[in-house]
Amino acid sequence: MEPRLSLITLGVSDMKRSRAFYETLGWKASGFSNDNVTFFQAGGMVFGLYGHAALAEDANVADVGMPAFRGVSLAYNGRDKAEVDTVMAEAEEAGAEIVKPAEEVFWGGYSGYFADPDGHLWEVAWNPGFVIAEDGSITLSE
Amino acid sequence: MEPRLSLITLGVSDMKRSRAFYETLGWKASGFSNDNVTFFQAGGMVFGLYGHAALAEDANVADVGMPAFRGVSLAYNGRDKAEVDTVMAEAEEAGAEIVKPAEEVFWGGYSGYFADPDGHLWEVAWNPGFVIAEDGSITLSE
Repeated sequence: MEPRLSLITLGVSDMKRSRAFYETLGWKASGFSNDNVTFFQAGGMVFGLYGHAALAEDANVADVGMPAFRGVSLAYNGRDKAEVDTVMAEAEEAGAEIVKPAEEVFWGGYSGYFADPDGHLWEVAWNPGFVIAEDGSITLSE
Repeated sequence: MEPRLSLITLGVSDMKRSRAFYETLGWKASGFSNDNVTFFQAGGMVFGLYGHAALAEDANVADVGMPAFRGVSLAYNGRDKAEVDTVMAEAEEAGAEIVKPAEEVFWGGYSGYFADPDGHLWEVAWNPGFVIAEDGSITLSE
């Protein structure tokens, strides 16, 4: 298994609402998208939206609703603190819930969280130890 | 907000166990890792493990335990069906629960699911519409 992720798929309760949310943030849905699934190119991987119940069924697990915390967070890292503030403001403008305003954090960075229309958590952060390449990729040192 | 993801972080209940699981799958922990957090380079992004309760606290949301389905799936796409079978076998060997053996699926591909030690869902799939580059990245057509 190569060390890479191909897709991350979020279960959503209202595809039109969620697709519109990410489009408002500036993401562009791929032509592969349809009423049941939305795909966005996200760097070298794919970010997908799929019906919450359909995703549970696809994975052969019981759908137990949408708890506030699902043990997962996605993160968007900005190149500086100002970009964190900009993205948090864009998310709020697009209708996200701000669950934690951006603040200085114990590990030396600057971080906030928003929740998408279904409560999926996004951290928006600046980490002084992570260098972001022009294409948006991050490479950790050994 | 550029269309990209920087990190995905999974909440885990036993860091040593989870780190060992992903290392057994062939992933190499970065030197940034410590007892509280593990980072893996995953293509152009970072895959992280963090304490489940600590992640909830960091995001300022209530920790409600670990339901079987959390509305999220990660996916590893193989270059052919044989790679799907290989990765599913590697995951089972590493201690994953096979929640859905790989099978032909309605969208024309081949897909199975395993759960990591905390029940985080990974789909392992071959999708005839997705071309995987040598570096592991996927680019959707428009």
